[in-house]
Order: sequence, then C-alpha cells, then structure tokens
Amino acid sequence: MDLKGTLIETLGMEITTLEAGKVIATMPVDDRTRQPFGLLHGGASVALAETVASVGAFQLIDQEKQAVVGLEINANHIRGKKEGVVTAIATVLHQGRKTMVWDIKIVDEEEKLVCVSRCTMAVIDL
Amino acid sequence: MDLKGTLIETLGMEITTLEAGKVIATMPVDDRTRQPFGLLHGGASVALAETVASVGAFQLIDQEKQAVVGLEINANHIRGKKEGVVTAIATVLHQGRKTMVWDIKIVDEEEKLVCVSRCTMAVIDL
Amino acid sequence: MDLKGTLIETLGMEITTLEAGKVIATMPVDDRTRQPFGLLHGGASVALAETVASVGAFQLIDQEKQAVVGLEINANHIRGKKEGVVTAIATVLHQGRKTMVWDIKIVDEEEKLVCVSRCTMAVIDL
Amino acid sequence: MDLKGTLIETLGMEITTLEAGKVIATMPVDDRTRQPFGLLHGGASVALAETVASVGAFQLIDQEKQAVVGLEINANHIRGKKEGVVTAIATVLHQGRKTMVWDIKIVDEEEKLVCVSRCTMAVIDL
Repeated sequence: MDLKGTLIETLGMEITTLEAGKVIATMPVDDRTRQPFGLLHGGASVALAETVASVGAFQLIDQEKQAVVGLEINANHIRGKKEGVVTAIATVLHQGRKTMVWDIKIVDEEEKLVCVSRCTMAVIDL
Repeated sequence: MDLKGTLIETLGMEITTLEAGKVIATMPVDDRTRQPFGLLHGGASVALAETVASVGAFQLIDQEKQAVVGLEINANHIRGKKEGVVTAIATVLHQGRKTMVWDIKIVDEEEKLVCVSRCTMAVIDL
Repeated sequence: MDLKGTLIETLGMEITTLEAGKVIATMPVDDRTRQPFGLLHGGASVALAETVASVGAFQLIDQEKQAVVGLEINANHIRGKKEGVVTAIATVLHQGRKTMVWDIKIVDEEEKLVCVSRCTMAVIDL
Repeated sequence: MDLKGTLIETLGMEITTLEAGKVIATMPVDDRTRQPFGLLHGGASVALAETVASVGAFQLIDQEKQAVVGLEINANHIRGKKEGVVTAIATVLHQGRKTMVWDIKIVDEEEKLVCVSRCTMAVIDL
C-alpha cells in the first residue's frame, strides 16, 4: 500500500505492527496534528484511529475480490497531550462477511489512554 | 485564533462563516486529505467536523473564564469523493452550562451529503 | 407488523406517523421507562430511537426480497424528564443500496430536545 | 437502589456482579425484549448497556455529594439472538473528576459477542 500523497503521510503516521486482526501505528504530536491551543487535535486522533482500523480490515479481506470502506466511527477524547508521540492499537472485535467492527485505543508514551474509538467497516464484493 | 502550526492549516481547512451557533468551513480533497485508494480519508472528514464544532463552541463561551474540550465525536461516512472541495456546516443542537452538542454535515459541491457527525463538547470553568 | 409480544408494546410505544422516509412515535415516561431516580431511562430513549429508525427503514425496502438490521446506534441525552410523553421523529439521512442512515430527535410536549440519535441500518438481500 | 417501577425491572434485568469499576447484569430474550421479527431488540441491548454503565458509575462517586447522568451512548449490534439470556459486562475505561467512560460488552450463553457499547457519563456535584 503506497502511503505517499495521503493523509497518513501528511500527519506523520507510521504503521509499526501489522498482524491478522491487529494493527499498531504511531503519530507525532506536533504542528501537523495540534489544535490552536497547543494540544493534540481530537480530529487527528480519530484520523489515526480510522487509519489503523482500515489497514487492519484491508488485511483480513480477499484483496483481489473485495474492498473495505468506513461506515461509522466514534471516539472519546480522554486525555490531552502537548508533544511527543501517540500510539494506536487496533484490534478486530467482529469479523463478519459484510461488516467488521474494530476497537482502537490510543495511548501516550506511558500507556495512558488518550482516546478510545470504535470503527464499523463495510466489506464490499468487487 | 491563530491557525498557523495546526492540523487546521495542515489539511487546508478554511473557516468561511462564523456566527453564534453556526460555523461553516471548507477543506480540499487532495494529497493532504486522501487515503491510499484516492478517496477522501474518513479521518479527514472527522477532523473537519471536530474543527467546526470546536470553533463554534468556542464562540459561545465566555472566553476569559471558560474553555471547551471535545468529549466525544461520531460520524457516518456516506459518499466517497476523489477531488474538489468539501464544506462542513456545524449547528448547535444543545447549549448547556456544562456541555454542548453540535450537529455537523459535510457536503460536496452539489450539496450531496458526504459525512454526518455529532460532537459533544465539555464547557470548563477556568 | 404485529407489535404484540415485543419491546415496543412492553414500553408503551405507539407509532403515530408512517411515511416514506419519516416515522413518528410516542412513548410514556412512567414506571415502564424510568430509571431508579425517577427520570426517563436513557436506554428507553435509545430503544424508542432504534424502533422508529427500524420501522422507517423497513418501509423503504422491498419487503419480499430484503430485510433490514440495525448495525450501529448512538445517542446524546440532552434533557431529563420525569413524567408525560416523549415523541420521536425519525427522518432518513441516507438511503443507499446496502445501508441507510437515520436521524432521530426525541422531544417533550413543548418540543424541547430530550435526546438526539443516529442509527445505521444494513439492507440485506434475502 | 430500588429497581421496582423502573425499566430495569420491566425488561427483567438482574445485576449479578457489582464491584468497583465492574458491573455484570443479565437480561432475558423474551416477549419483553424482542422486536417484531422475533430477535432481541437492539434497543433492549442498549438499555442494558446504559443500565450497567450507570450502576457502575454510581458506585464510583461520593453518593451524598455527587450524581451521575448519561451524556452519550453508542453501540454496535453484532449478532442476533432469539431466546435465552444475554449478559452485559461493564468496565470503566476512564474515571475522571467530571466524566467517566465505560466499555460494555454483551454476550450470549457461549460468550459470543452480541453487542458492544461505550457510554459517557457526567459526574455532577450536588
């Protein structure tokens, strides 16, 4: 998957673990991802959450015959963060024929919860 | 509000309307906001939604004595988009003393719905 | 649709309007729907929201060849209520081939917002 | 907490475990909780989820000086169920001064996931 010229590259996300049913990625808290008060923008967290869920769902389909698209995403912002790096861990909660549901937790360097999210993906037959 | 060095600038968002209880902003669909398959990244939509809700909530508080933070956001991705510009319209559904709830609709150039979102903000006394 | 022996009957819901893309129903705030502190239980609100969305979605499909199932629902509880009746108004936001998205607003007797909800339904070919 | 004359009693919910940060409750799948097609009504699942989260949050506050109210709840319906009993397990994800976030999983008799939910509660100083 080429990440050049995408939001994933724009915000500095890096995928560090890619297993069946599990994806981990990091994102810097810097000028690219902050809101005007100097904190990590909640929207950056959700963008990271949807990225790891999408990458994870894509791993589980038959990529020649199927595609996945995000249907719904939700997130709670738990803890503010001003600098450093956040890490998102996505795990599959439900892998159905037509839909998948992923759980995403975003933590700081000390494993404290920054954001918790859930993403529903549709599996489409091409 | 200085948007330099923020996610808002990074993704090319521009606030075009700023009224009490209503905010409108645009965002380009380009290399900054696409996912690897060439479509608008759902996370970019949510980042735009949280931006307009946050800006709108900030307008409604006593900025010397209060702050607002995002508690929860959710979104349905309705329609894919490959290029051009999307426009987000945020309107306040509930303005309470401690919380606000905002409705956000993101549309394309023909007013077709791309994404629908709802954001819960906490109002904090400083 | 027979509502005998269902949650809809149990909680006293009554469907009052049934149009293409719009459903209205009422629910009493009484011993059936309250939580231990005497207020309308948030779960009763969500049950009402999912009911009107489901009934509305069912109206829009080819009932001999298709079915609808709820995929996701979310809700903000805006205002407490101790007695009387609430009214839910569901309108379709998106009617796709595979999914629908419904907006639901629940109001009190003075049209004040009690709950706002969004429900994603899957359309299944039988 | 008196559950007589509440939704909790109406739908046959029973709280079986009550610890700091963890609540478990059961609910029958029967005429009280089904939708018109004979399956567990998604709204009943959400009502159960909000019940265990609320009971759990109530356990964690200073009950003489504080109250909790549900702000937001969301849920994915994963698996249909026609009869028997479902069990909801609520665990606290975040316990803040002003808000709490609870994770709720509802499973069937074989521990298969029926519904996954997240609930945001506000903690209010009386």
